[in-house]
Amino acid sequence: MSSFEPINLGNPADFHVHLRDGPMMDLVTPTVYEGGVSIAYVMPNLVPPITTIDRVVEYKANLQKLAPKTTFMMTFYLSKDLTPELIHQAAQQKAISGVKCYPAGVTTNSSAGVDPNDFSDFYPIFKAMEEENLILNLHGEKPSSDKDGEEIHVLNAEESFLPALKKLHADFPNLKIVLEHCTTKAAIDTINEINSGITNAEDIKVAASITAHHLSLTIDSWAGAPINFCKPVAKLPSDKKALVSAAVSGKPWFFFGSDSAPHPLHAKAKHVGVCAGVFTQSLAISYVAEVFESQGKLEHLKGFVTEFGRDFYAVNSKLDLVDSSENAWLVKKVSKVPETIGEGDLVVAPFKAGDELQFDVEWRAAA
Amino acid sequence: MSSFEPINLGNPADFHVHLRDGPMMDLVTPTVYEGGVSIAYVMPNLVPPITTIDRVVEYKANLQKLAPKTTFMMTFYLSKDLTPELIHQAAQQKAISGVKCYPAGVTTNSSAGVDPNDFSDFYPIFKAMEEENLILNLHGEKPSSDKDGEEIHVLNAEESFLPALKKLHADFPNLKIVLEHCTTKAAIDTINEINSGITNAEDIKVAASITAHHLSLTIDSWAGAPINFCKPVAKLPSDKKALVSAAVSGKPWFFFGSDSAPHPLHAKAKHVGVCAGVFTQSLAISYVAEVFESQGKLEHLKGFVTEFGRDFYAVNSKLDLVDSSENAWLVKKVSKVPETIGEGDLVVAPFKAGDELQFDVEWRAAA
Repeated sequence: MSSFEPINLGNPADFHVHLRDGPMMDLVTPTVYEGGVSIAYVMPNLVPPITTIDRVVEYKANLQKLAPKTTFMMTFYLSKDLTPELIHQAAQQKAISGVKCYPAGVTTNSSAGVDPNDFSDFYPIFKAMEEENLILNLHGEKPSSDKDGEEIHVLNAEESFLPALKKLHADFPNLKIVLEHCTTKAAIDTINEINSGITNAEDIKVAASITAHHLSLTIDSWAGAPINFCKPVAKLPSDKKALVSAAVSGKPWFFFGSDSAPHPLHAKAKHVGVCAGVFTQSLAISYVAEVFESQGKLEHLKGFVTEFGRDFYAVNSKLDLVDSSENAWLVKKVSKVPETIGEGDLVVAPFKAGDELQFDVEWRAAA
Repeated sequence: MSSFEPINLGNPADFHVHLRDGPMMDLVTPTVYEGGVSIAYVMPNLVPPITTIDRVVEYKANLQKLAPKTTFMMTFYLSKDLTPELIHQAAQQKAISGVKCYPAGVTTNSSAGVDPNDFSDFYPIFKAMEEENLILNLHGEKPSSDKDGEEIHVLNAEESFLPALKKLHADFPNLKIVLEHCTTKAAIDTINEINSGITNAEDIKVAASITAHHLSLTIDSWAGAPINFCKPVAKLPSDKKALVSAAVSGKPWFFFGSDSAPHPLHAKAKHVGVCAGVFTQSLAISYVAEVFESQGKLEHLKGFVTEFGRDFYAVNSKLDLVDSSENAWLVKKVSKVPETIGEGDLVVAPFKAGDELQFDVEWRAAA
């Protein structure tokens, strides 16, 4: 253990974070940096969803006050409130970096989302995004359905979405798309297939983000343990193995997006209506490092958490950061995940609460 | 609605009930009759498990006091505490009707169970049971495992068990076996295959019980709703359809066993360690009737809840009942499932709490 050489991860990025608003925002926003992450790509699924420049600018300012060293990249929520004009304007003001698409009803605060069986209403939006080089972030699940001829459930919801992803890519070959928090071997195979033959990072148009928790969880982990219930649900052991292989592969179209999604503990400890989401922000890099070490692939960790995503999003320069004075160093340090963070009514249980972790992140002055 | 003719179901039987002990036993035991059931086949997974004649006799007496009109059929818990001599003795004293086999660790109070990869230690027990015409009740799941070459999880745990069922039947062709609470198309297909060609009910050696809740639930029903979490877990829509088809088919090797499994509400509303089980006892026949009506098969309901199981267990005479003065009549009567039963610390949420049901059971003097 004593022989472990700390690893300079530079300025890691988490390309899928939920920071909420109100007291929950106050609680979790500082944990981005504490968890070893410099750049947070912020989801827009507040209530109501973020669909205006004013709100996204105000939200970013609020976040920045809470975490002065963290670079926040902002998004709009894809809905009928958006127009191509608004997309152009928001891009030119650098108010947003992308647009998040939620199929209606599949996860927390997604009721204003779209019908993934027919994206055509949004093609003018996608065209504007393609022109502005904005990213399209897809929650890639079809809503559950038990109609004859179409049997969609939480287990095949992602795989059933993949044809829609391929069609979008075919219709907008220059639109940069991320399949968010992918959870299945089928998704990994599709992303690899789309990128086969690509040797230059600039040519990647369709990437996938992978969370920390999906590298550890399977269906058995959330059966009877709502704290591990999230959407998309963690799937079979064979899927988890495919995700781990993809994450540690060093392939630049797979990068980190935690989908850290805090809920008050009382919203997880329910007999019905459990909120979907796993909170990993406060120890994000530590969770991921543990998986990479188990695969003997710590040398690929920096690619996954820092380089590949930042290349894809074109935020790979120090100039893209609000603060580049410190670097995140991975160090070997055993610690116990706290049972909860927060206090009073606002208590959140982190992923793997009570377990021991082997790694920690130290921020050190950049060379 | 007014044209519905009440149906005389005779004296229905539930061939898989959990009545617990202590205050929970006091609360749920009377609900067997209230739910429209005359005969309850009682599971032995108390703490510690029931493995002696003294305890099974005492337990039955306690239950009988709580529900004088209910006929209780008792079971032993398969474990190394049992001997062939004990099996012979218990059978000859009519203390038990069968023996329940739990694979270790798969569900509530199963830690004393057996290794389903190797039943051979119990072959002397099975031989004694075969000689005494006792029933072997199998919880048919392999324990989850993520070892290389064997990937068992809650979704394929039952299907993975089926070869062990077939081997047991081959090794003990005259032992009567029930695959309890089956949940998959694979299990239904296997039971049909084993019984293919059988035309006399007396020739059935391997049957399957089907619960009320598995006729309604799928994986989506318990994802985020621990009240619907049970073992085996409810599976895919295609599995549910196979269960419904089997239940309403009129095939005598499929019969009712509710696996009604009460837990205090606080044991279901947890963020980790949710207890597995759905409580259906208090409205057992009403839940099932609703499914049969939706399939236009109410004429097969009596076979499923009364005749087939009682034929298999050879308790098809009035003389087998402690009370045969009343019959259960299915009537059309809309009612709302209560949010909970019980009071204080001992509160149980019934299946479909708050929903409307279309049918009720009335006990009427037998003709």
